[in-house]
Amino acid sequence: MAIVLGDNRYGKAENRLVRVDRDGDEHRITDLTVSVSLSGDMSDTHLTGANDKVLATDTQKNTVFAFARDGIGEIEDFALRLARHFVSTQESIHAARVGIVAHPWERLQVGGRPAHHSFARSGAGTRTTRVTYDGERAWVLGGVEDLTVLNSTGSEFWGFPRDEYTTLVEVKDRILATAVSATWRFSVDEADWADAHETALATLLDAFGGTHSQSLQQTLYAMGQAVLEAVPEIAEIRFSLPNKHHFLVDLEPFGLDNPGEVFYAADRPYGLIEGTVLRDDAPPAGPAWS
Amino acid sequence: MAIVLGDNRYGKAENRLVRVDRDGDEHRITDLTVSVSLSGDMSDTHLTGANDKVLATDTQKNTVFAFARDGIGEIEDFALRLARHFVSTQESIHAARVGIVAHPWERLQVGGRPAHHSFARSGAGTRTTRVTYDGERAWVLGGVEDLTVLNSTGSEFWGFPRDEYTTLVEVKDRILATAVSATWRFSVDEADWADAHETALATLLDAFGGTHSQSLQQTLYAMGQAVLEAVPEIAEIRFSLPNKHHFLVDLEPFGLDNPGEVFYAADRPYGLIEGTVLRDDAPPAGPAWS
Amino acid sequence: MAIVLGDNRYGKAENRLVRVDRDGDEHRITDLTVSVSLSGDMSDTHLTGANDKVLATDTQKNTVFAFARDGIGEIEDFALRLARHFVSTQESIHAARVGIVAHPWERLQVGGRPAHHSFARSGAGTRTTRVTYDGERAWVLGGVEDLTVLNSTGSEFWGFPRDEYTTLVEVKDRILATAVSATWRFSVDEADWADAHETALATLLDAFGGTHSQSLQQTLYAMGQAVLEAVPEIAEIRFSLPNKHHFLVDLEPFGLDNPGEVFYAADRPYGLIEGTVLRDDAPPAGPAWS
Amino acid sequence: MAIVLGDNRYGKAENRLVRVDRDGDEHRITDLTVSVSLSGDMSDTHLTGANDKVLATDTQKNTVFAFARDGIGEIEDFALRLARHFVSTQESIHAARVGIVAHPWERLQVGGRPAHHSFARSGAGTRTTRVTYDGERAWVLGGVEDLTVLNSTGSEFWGFPRDEYTTLVEVKDRILATAVSATWRFSVDEADWADAHETALATLLDAFGGTHSQSLQQTLYAMGQAVLEAVPEIAEIRFSLPNKHHFLVDLEPFGLDNPGEVFYAADRPYGLIEGTVLRDDAPPAGPAWS
Repeated sequence: MAIVLGDNRYGKAENRLVRVDRDGDEHRITDLTVSVSLSGDMSDTHLTGANDKVLATDTQKNTVFAFARDGIGEIEDFALRLARHFVSTQESIHAARVGIVAHPWERLQVGGRPAHHSFARSGAGTRTTRVTYDGERAWVLGGVEDLTVLNSTGSEFWGFPRDEYTTLVEVKDRILATAVSATWRFSVDEADWADAHETALATLLDAFGGTHSQSLQQTLYAMGQAVLEAVPEIAEIRFSLPNKHHFLVDLEPFGLDNPGEVFYAADRPYGLIEGTVLRDDAPPAGPAWS
Repeated sequence: MAIVLGDNRYGKAENRLVRVDRDGDEHRITDLTVSVSLSGDMSDTHLTGANDKVLATDTQKNTVFAFARDGIGEIEDFALRLARHFVSTQESIHAARVGIVAHPWERLQVGGRPAHHSFARSGAGTRTTRVTYDGERAWVLGGVEDLTVLNSTGSEFWGFPRDEYTTLVEVKDRILATAVSATWRFSVDEADWADAHETALATLLDAFGGTHSQSLQQTLYAMGQAVLEAVPEIAEIRFSLPNKHHFLVDLEPFGLDNPGEVFYAADRPYGLIEGTVLRDDAPPAGPAWS
Repeated sequence: MAIVLGDNRYGKAENRLVRVDRDGDEHRITDLTVSVSLSGDMSDTHLTGANDKVLATDTQKNTVFAFARDGIGEIEDFALRLARHFVSTQESIHAARVGIVAHPWERLQVGGRPAHHSFARSGAGTRTTRVTYDGERAWVLGGVEDLTVLNSTGSEFWGFPRDEYTTLVEVKDRILATAVSATWRFSVDEADWADAHETALATLLDAFGGTHSQSLQQTLYAMGQAVLEAVPEIAEIRFSLPNKHHFLVDLEPFGLDNPGEVFYAADRPYGLIEGTVLRDDAPPAGPAWS
Repeated sequence: MAIVLGDNRYGKAENRLVRVDRDGDEHRITDLTVSVSLSGDMSDTHLTGANDKVLATDTQKNTVFAFARDGIGEIEDFALRLARHFVSTQESIHAARVGIVAHPWERLQVGGRPAHHSFARSGAGTRTTRVTYDGERAWVLGGVEDLTVLNSTGSEFWGFPRDEYTTLVEVKDRILATAVSATWRFSVDEADWADAHETALATLLDAFGGTHSQSLQQTLYAMGQAVLEAVPEIAEIRFSLPNKHHFLVDLEPFGLDNPGEVFYAADRPYGLIEGTVLRDDAPPAGPAWS
């Protein structure tokens, strides 16, 4: 028996990059958190401390900011540029992963008109990407985070098995709320990323609202199916959906009924529903998710 | 010398109340975090443990949910109802403070139309109130939290004194960004709260974007002045404005210029600018802020 | 009616300062978050944008780090040095407030012995201070944060009034848990700060554990009284005590009793008990708490 | 092409369970966050909304609390009991994963002696486990989280490649700090879990402090190797190590040197070093990590 080094990677995480595009009539801003992770021939630094194959994480950070000088474009493309750069310029780096979270901003109204250079952070969903490049090909993920949605009716939960620990009452009308975290895998590495994102997001929200739901699982599948039907370049979509429980408050002790109106929003514990919807002919995922 | 009990208060904090209004063609939701704090003749419980004057915090929680049964209305009114209830029904309670944070939601589009019962959390500013009632009169605060705004130009900072520890370079064009936390004090306890809030918020944002700024302090004052001019019922406004620094990245080592385009968004430390703008004939604040 | 500038202050918040003392046989580390806040003759910057009286917050940050070069000592003394510096060197600055949070570390064992230069963050309470200096005198606060404590018995809550919204059951044995946030005001600006802190903290914990409690208020008072009795330089102590509810789980549906053994630890809502214990001859607090 | 359901699981996350053991001379407390995740024959609920195979997450929660009635024991064993229960009692459940985080508490001193029933939360590392059971065998992970450690010397970083984006200066003496997140895989499902945890943790800390380090990667490997050498039941260990950068402050502008004494602790970005150390004859990991 010997002890050996297994999978490993390293990088600079959470580079907070803001770019102002000033060339048009109006300023535009891009606000990103960029994380880089590299892997390759890294035995030396682990085993002997020799760092001649270790592109410093500080250098990775510098690269992110320097590359932004020429413009960022769509985050999927920016991640692709960065990932390809690291692998193609450093012999010891065999794969690169670049993750980006794009923080949304809205243009303010100033003096009754869209402002030239003033913005407010908006909160309806954060666009994400993760690109993996191994020297030969690239895998592109897109997605959305922090997208909290709620149906105030159109949700049921009943017919579940009852064992000796089951006390839950069946319900034909409840609030269904979740913070959608969805990541989709593209089967391509070139696309109209902005359009694909917009379509996926709108479709997902439409399916959330439009599904009369017997379980959050059913809603998950409906959202996934709708996105795959709407965006041909997406091969697979993965969801992590916390069930943000809203409990009907028992007002009987106070002589009041409660016809589905007053709820207590609970923090913990919460249901957690995770699932994948994919095309049966989806190409292999390779290292896309690892 | 003796040891004595000083100021004290107690209550139930962060009651997470969600109400669904179902009576119209469309559902409406109200999502609040309600905190109650009571004070009065509380020596016994501190000194001897006798609790006959201590309305249980659990009871306070129940009251919040029970009162929601009849509808919530504007959060300022809901806080007033609750505060008055506790003081008028409990002899030992001499003052009540009710703070409410209203989490914003937007109606989703489903099938191309505004949804009947589907919503997404939005993030552009959270409305707040705090009401204090002492058995005779009520003080009402309104406000906004988590309102992150940014000007990508129109901000300077220069002319500051230079001592032996000063290294900061003067700058004629910078990003100005802050997370506005503003609280305003009404001189009245009856008003069109929704309209006052909407006007204050729009005015504040307009002033943020419309002020060519030499310092965040100048912007603070401009926002306060504008709100006071726009909403006669507001006597005073207090701001806490973290200066969310965006540092221009030095790209020279990479042979690149950086004409105000690529920035690093820093976390800590941050400037913190706090200030009050008020009418010179503002009525006394009493316990409104305590 | 005119609109005027009211109270205001500004500064650099959350400077993350770590100092290594290397001169002894063993390294020692001091890990602080230092926040500076200055006030004075600041009308110009608010009203006209002229910054000639505004010592830049960047300069404040530099000063914090430069002052650490000579050693930090007790945090109360470091805060005093900084506060006096800003007021005495800047004519326009009339008052300074310096708040410090000291993050605790423990020395590791390495090879069976106390390590020379290796440490782990520990979590049992964070020491704090806040010093206010107005050019003539200084007010010193000490305190502790993030000190979560629990009694698994010795706590009751009964005898409280019952109104129409009361459903809480009286209980003669419960878990009492809180995250102590305590701030004490010294009547002096010179003391053996380390000893005072250690004594106050140990006394407070002793009183928490040693009090058979009818309410968290009673425990609050007992802790305050004990600290005041143990540390003569402390004139007043203020507590903010969230009641971290632990609810006994009803196991009857599963045919099990639950004799005070299995609890559910709730997040929100929570009771919040705030109170002050002070000497009846405590000197005026001045701006210490403002 | 058809759209199909892929991997999925569901469960109740973050059940906050506190147990008081009262049978001895002294109370003991166990404070856990327990997360359950089940998978199996779940097509129906996703595709048609039929829930007859969906053991409710509420039932899972009840089971966690009910099982605690008989005592918890070591968290690995408690997770094993729960995981086996779900798979063996529910035909449709083919695999269960139970994750537990154990929040550490220390006994207080009261009246100069170890307290009977009083405790304070301590912060030096949180013990974790994750058990996966598939009906035939169980995989057990142990680990530690939130273990922040620092070496104030004994760390270098130099000899790294320099490309056009490299500006980092080589350094022969720096602070090395990280928040250790380590997860180890046992090759057995029965062991003296408490002893294994204690040995792994002490060994890991000893290796952190005892390694003169050329890179955080080298320290990672040293910690992993030491744990594997010390605990024969551990087959593999995975680390996620944020490099918590401490930058030496340049005090030259103030006429001061800085011989490794005054540092600025940065938040973001941070290096992130991830790696695995394992035995070359480690048994297959199966679903242990998935």
